[in-house]
Amino acid sequence: MRMYDIIAKKRDGGVLTPQELEFTVNGFVAGEVPDYQMSALLMAIYLRGMTAAETAQLTEIMARSGDQVDLSAIEGVKVDKHSTGGVGDKTTLVITPIVAACGVRIAKMSGRGLGHTGGTVDKMESVPGTRTSIGREEFFAQVNRIGISVIGQSGNLAPADKKMYALRDVTATVGCIPLIASSIMSKKLAAGSDCILLDVKTGNGAFMKTSEESIELAKAMVDIGQRHGRRVAALITDMNTPLGHNIGNSLEVAESVAVLKGHGPADLTEVCYQLAANMLLLAGKGTLPECRAMAERAVASGAAFQKLKELFAAQGGDTRVLDDPSLFAPAKASRDVLAPRSGFLYATDTEKIGGASVLLGAGRLKKEDPIDFAAGIVLHKKAGDRVQAGEPLATLCADDEARFAAAEELFLDAMQFADQAPALPPLVLARVTVDGVERF
Amino acid sequence: MRMYDIIAKKRDGGVLTPQELEFTVNGFVAGEVPDYQMSALLMAIYLRGMTAAETAQLTEIMARSGDQVDLSAIEGVKVDKHSTGGVGDKTTLVITPIVAACGVRIAKMSGRGLGHTGGTVDKMESVPGTRTSIGREEFFAQVNRIGISVIGQSGNLAPADKKMYALRDVTATVGCIPLIASSIMSKKLAAGSDCILLDVKTGNGAFMKTSEESIELAKAMVDIGQRHGRRVAALITDMNTPLGHNIGNSLEVAESVAVLKGHGPADLTEVCYQLAANMLLLAGKGTLPECRAMAERAVASGAAFQKLKELFAAQGGDTRVLDDPSLFAPAKASRDVLAPRSGFLYATDTEKIGGASVLLGAGRLKKEDPIDFAAGIVLHKKAGDRVQAGEPLATLCADDEARFAAAEELFLDAMQFADQAPALPPLVLARVTVDGVERF
Repeated sequence: MRMYDIIAKKRDGGVLTPQELEFTVNGFVAGEVPDYQMSALLMAIYLRGMTAAETAQLTEIMARSGDQVDLSAIEGVKVDKHSTGGVGDKTTLVITPIVAACGVRIAKMSGRGLGHTGGTVDKMESVPGTRTSIGREEFFAQVNRIGISVIGQSGNLAPADKKMYALRDVTATVGCIPLIASSIMSKKLAAGSDCILLDVKTGNGAFMKTSEESIELAKAMVDIGQRHGRRVAALITDMNTPLGHNIGNSLEVAESVAVLKGHGPADLTEVCYQLAANMLLLAGKGTLPECRAMAERAVASGAAFQKLKELFAAQGGDTRVLDDPSLFAPAKASRDVLAPRSGFLYATDTEKIGGASVLLGAGRLKKEDPIDFAAGIVLHKKAGDRVQAGEPLATLCADDEARFAAAEELFLDAMQFADQAPALPPLVLARVTVDGVERF
Repeated sequence: MRMYDIIAKKRDGGVLTPQELEFTVNGFVAGEVPDYQMSALLMAIYLRGMTAAETAQLTEIMARSGDQVDLSAIEGVKVDKHSTGGVGDKTTLVITPIVAACGVRIAKMSGRGLGHTGGTVDKMESVPGTRTSIGREEFFAQVNRIGISVIGQSGNLAPADKKMYALRDVTATVGCIPLIASSIMSKKLAAGSDCILLDVKTGNGAFMKTSEESIELAKAMVDIGQRHGRRVAALITDMNTPLGHNIGNSLEVAESVAVLKGHGPADLTEVCYQLAANMLLLAGKGTLPECRAMAERAVASGAAFQKLKELFAAQGGDTRVLDDPSLFAPAKASRDVLAPRSGFLYATDTEKIGGASVLLGAGRLKKEDPIDFAAGIVLHKKAGDRVQAGEPLATLCADDEARFAAAEELFLDAMQFADQAPALPPLVLARVTVDGVERF
């Protein structure tokens, strides 16, 4: 088998065999297939596509390229979730305690933030003392004991994806549905859960800009899961505006606590209930309405908040900041951004808002950049709100006033005003399951 | 400017600007654009194409990436020719002396053979003493003195093409008309002649398998030439069967001498007259029929053969072998290949015949392989000929009998017999000029 022939086959629109995909991926990981051949193949895949079966085979080979977590030491059904990344997306911190409080096991590996989107692991570490790097045995034991653990991705999970993604990132071959789907699902398959709920963000703050693209991606991922015997579903959720009001690590933990205490922002609360209900549905806990009611009861009873505290306590976190988020170390400096005109906040460029939070120190542009847990943005107005000139649109938080000028400029650039109220998209645009697509 | 954006633009079917092409090509030559980005772009070009203007700009940037030969030290119009490569293609050795004998300057750089196709420089070196590596001043002086010099490609001509071709060769991006056209024409533009005649071979022994593909390539190259102020035309010539009867270096010199002495094989003679006439036409020597008659007169008068001898004498070659090719050192061993059945030789797989000649030692698979000048194949029967079982189809020549088994097997595999005579394609299938395509 020769890499040249595999490239030529895909270039001409052919379907690669499992053997050819294995030769390619394993050879690439082993350093036998050079970058320049892999990037030519990736561009050919980008422009010629892959069949559903091809995509599923590629995913499996990538999942097998490294460790495969065996969760059989944990009793019961294990449910995972994955978000394609957004701004202010703290849903993992809300829904995993809800689902665990309803008796479904969560053995979850999460990522760190990069670029304009945040990551759960960073948010957790903003709670003093929290460990996210935990060995496999302790991880399993914690899930068996309290039903939940959320840790950083550990071990050598899908190294083929890591190496392929690094190459795609510099060769303009990221935005290709079979490659995105196989990248995400290879890690999810390797992470071992029985059920996987996907939160595919769509809109100007998401990787996928339109709901139809997001639905295509969701269908591809649900199909891959089904072909590998996992229960998978996806919600397509709006990311034309940040989720909730807080952006930044400890700010987002505080807002998650608010939702779990029953007084969080309506948009975030609603999305979290829908996500949690769908996770419970995958785990076989009842019909969707039953699962929704179960999730709401877990919040109302305080069980979900209690589970959040158990989760942090088990991982060394200081739960006093959860009981009283005002105990979080505050940002050294803050500044209000005032509305430059009256009218309606018509739309926001969410990617730019995420970018402004990075400028404030809440995120990173490069993997090795440090993070300021207290930095971020609190939104006082969101798309659809009426504003008066001079009214605060948001409060910026940072460790140094010097950061405000550039962040404020970018933030204001993200705001679009109009005289009429905009028509806002629904929070959840569609639901994709093995049975098909339900649009809302 | 970022390479990422250039790749993404071409991936989405965009047209690259001259600045973007320059950034890409110059950066690649300088090692600033890595192989993996270049191969992704090449695949995007392969699948998305390039406009004629883009192709011409790419060609110019490639031509400028190294030395550009300034032929202004040579008086008069300089004419070059280029063949896309075939088996038994010794036309350069025949037509350059004809054209020079008609008073048009030939300052030509030629290549060596690789794979199943031969090269003029190797053929010339089979004449003992011939130097093909000659400095620029001596090269110019020889052309001014005797009107002709044919040397190996010297200096740093179109290094961008060399580096890009090496990458295309391993990433399945060779067979793309804009890339082939820019590769050939970048070297021809850098080589400096005013007029360029292209011989685009078509058929099973050529890179281009169909005449329509060949016409497309020819149109792209003629267009590039025109955009750069060169007079360019192309003939599409048949390579479904080797040209002439002899394949191998000294064997091909001997056959070239036969044509120049007026008793060469009909197919080779006819193709040479048409090529020579078109070179003279480009040089402004008259109408096409006048140029054809001029070429025939140069052969009939002996002037063309005399010019061949002058060429070799000027470059140190022993012209006694031209006067009497039987003085060439003979191959140490030879063997006849006999017809396995009676009937018509219906078709030949010319690439395999070229492959058999390489197995005999007449060519090379890798650049550094040595060549046996005496090795090769003399065809006694060609496609269309009637054969009797047991009659010699060809004579194989090599330095060692051990080479015959594999070469004979491949040669016989290339022969296809039938009970009826085949319909043979014309020797010259089309002529492409700035005025359009003339099909024969």
